[in-house]
Amino acid sequence: MPIEHAPFSKAEYDRRIAKTRKAMAAAGIDVLFVTDPSNQAWLTGYDGWSFYVHQGVILGMEGEPIWWGRHMDALGGLRTCWMSKDNIRGYADHYVQSTIRHPMQDLAGHIRAFGLDAARIGVEMENYYYSAKAHDVLGKELPDATLVDATALVNWQRLIKSDEEIAFIRKAARISEKIVQTAIDRAAPGVRKNDLVADIFHAGITGVGDDWGDYPAIVPLTPSGLDATAAHLTWNGAPMKKGEATFFELSGCYRRYHAPLCRTVYLGTPPQEMRDAEQAQIEGISAGLEAARAGNRTSDIANAFLDVLARHGIEREGRMGYPIGLSYPPDWGERTASIRTEDKTILQPGMVFHFMPALWMDSWGLETTETILIIENGPAEALCNVERKLFVKD
Amino acid sequence: MPIEHAPFSKAEYDRRIAKTRKAMAAAGIDVLFVTDPSNQAWLTGYDGWSFYVHQGVILGMEGEPIWWGRHMDALGGLRTCWMSKDNIRGYADHYVQSTIRHPMQDLAGHIRAFGLDAARIGVEMENYYYSAKAHDVLGKELPDATLVDATALVNWQRLIKSDEEIAFIRKAARISEKIVQTAIDRAAPGVRKNDLVADIFHAGITGVGDDWGDYPAIVPLTPSGLDATAAHLTWNGAPMKKGEATFFELSGCYRRYHAPLCRTVYLGTPPQEMRDAEQAQIEGISAGLEAARAGNRTSDIANAFLDVLARHGIEREGRMGYPIGLSYPPDWGERTASIRTEDKTILQPGMVFHFMPALWMDSWGLETTETILIIENGPAEALCNVERKLFVKD
Repeated sequence: MPIEHAPFSKAEYDRRIAKTRKAMAAAGIDVLFVTDPSNQAWLTGYDGWSFYVHQGVILGMEGEPIWWGRHMDALGGLRTCWMSKDNIRGYADHYVQSTIRHPMQDLAGHIRAFGLDAARIGVEMENYYYSAKAHDVLGKELPDATLVDATALVNWQRLIKSDEEIAFIRKAARISEKIVQTAIDRAAPGVRKNDLVADIFHAGITGVGDDWGDYPAIVPLTPSGLDATAAHLTWNGAPMKKGEATFFELSGCYRRYHAPLCRTVYLGTPPQEMRDAEQAQIEGISAGLEAARAGNRTSDIANAFLDVLARHGIEREGRMGYPIGLSYPPDWGERTASIRTEDKTILQPGMVFHFMPALWMDSWGLETTETILIIENGPAEALCNVERKLFVKD
Repeated sequence: MPIEHAPFSKAEYDRRIAKTRKAMAAAGIDVLFVTDPSNQAWLTGYDGWSFYVHQGVILGMEGEPIWWGRHMDALGGLRTCWMSKDNIRGYADHYVQSTIRHPMQDLAGHIRAFGLDAARIGVEMENYYYSAKAHDVLGKELPDATLVDATALVNWQRLIKSDEEIAFIRKAARISEKIVQTAIDRAAPGVRKNDLVADIFHAGITGVGDDWGDYPAIVPLTPSGLDATAAHLTWNGAPMKKGEATFFELSGCYRRYHAPLCRTVYLGTPPQEMRDAEQAQIEGISAGLEAARAGNRTSDIANAFLDVLARHGIEREGRMGYPIGLSYPPDWGERTASIRTEDKTILQPGMVFHFMPALWMDSWGLETTETILIIENGPAEALCNVERKLFVKD
């Protein structure tokens, strides 16, 4: 069936599956049930806004993976997955959001039919799309099986990006530049925040040239003033005001691949403490990029940044970044490594992170971030090209 | 603290909490841990794109509810919830997407501190934001507690909308009309689908007058031709073509409230079988609206529609609608009642459904739908006003 629909080459999917099976073998898993939509897409090409009902990929140790979901979405599977028609399976609509049936009953039937009812089955226990109830029903339906926690098993395989993936992320980066520039250009006293966000969406989805824009896994975050002390508030219809900073946490998206980029705009004359923080942040980011070298660790990036901040007398806690790439709502991060002092992941060429050392202070927030690529030699490459500074508009 | 930030009156929140506590008592639940972001917002006003990390509302049988989440999002809680500052609680960032800690360990600490460690704790087992892992950790942390499945307990309380909520849904309906009209106007051979979707987003988020547009819980679904035989494919950069039908499954959103509305556009001259289906569908919708009366059942709406379809020689299975209102991604439905033959929910004034009797056929899809309000007397009111037909453009 339609390999032409899937965004990557067959060789790429083969490589991903071989890598995943190696990890399954190491974990003693016979068959993996993959619910994370990003993992499903990464393995099969499946792409649709259908993750609000139960669906997943069944990956055994040989043969093609099987995409399984609601019957009407199996038709979408035929249109987007690379596998043969027989390996797209649908369940009846009376399982959907039913108070008397559960889709895991149907899934268990497939697993029994494959003779895997006494297998060690890997499930993604920490995932938005594998509910406590799904786990409970699947366990009861397959009393002889052993359900093994395989959270992030596939996610970890995604950490090092292929050349094909990096090409997609570079396209997303062009879109990110366009939307951040749109936000900077449009920000002005009196502009309603929602009108500005409308322009951001428009710029992102029209895309750049032939590279059409997909929906980002997180909507634009654009809080101003005190709202910007909180990290994740979305927009409203209030006009922008002089004397306030607004951070723009945005990402372009090209065929589900992201390149997040944040910049902050101040309307008026920023207070000196914000100017000081700006200098510390920019210097810290440079130090972080210098430390973001193959062979170093994620913690080295965090420590390099924090050392600079400490020299400037600023204390900061918490995570400063995460791997990014293919993603679906509600998160564009990959949920594996973190850029933080306690994380010791060794950096390797092809890893891509959103390096996100934002400063959320008592009365304002300052976000200046970069999507960075770990390369063979030298400091990480920042994939977007927008001046790294606090943008000030009068 | 800032009741001015929350979208509804204090009396409205009091009413919601009283209703929920009555349901808790009936279910023998001492304390409820609410993870569904829509339920959290409904009870407390909390609003932020932070549901990709663990967070929730702790609702006991007395006092204010407590909003609990990541420390940086507790700052967002202070900006959006109606409760006092003491009842917004944050956990440390090292719990976030950690491989060695889990936020439920922190939550369990709060529950112990409230003296509820041997209580009957209601949890939403079938929810995107309550993972199998969260359930596992919470159970182990609170060995003396009984975790009770309270899936949809709050959702069911949301089924009948208050006048304040209906006013919001009517505002969303104005935005829905605007975006559907934008889609119909812009659809033409050669127009790239992503450019059209960019215009839809722009129209939706600019909103109507002072009623600014919020993000819908589902992105625009706009598939054409064979892609429209599948229900949930998102857009790409291909130009629209003559001889193809495109359905537009859209919703305006006003402060998280939705009013979904779908119409279909055919470029060129539609085949006779599609014209015939159009007639059956429109006639069926009228019959469904007639049956959607207080005192009747959800199944009556489904049967009324299916009877008309059968008379026209069309077979259809599956669900034909669901309650809508307040919602966050990935679903704008409320996941309680369904419009389908086996569902026997009694219709009451104030219920709002997306009546969604779409036809997905072998080579095309036809979506014509309405957001409907059940009223005291007479057939349901369709809240949007866009002509109910297949739009044909040459």
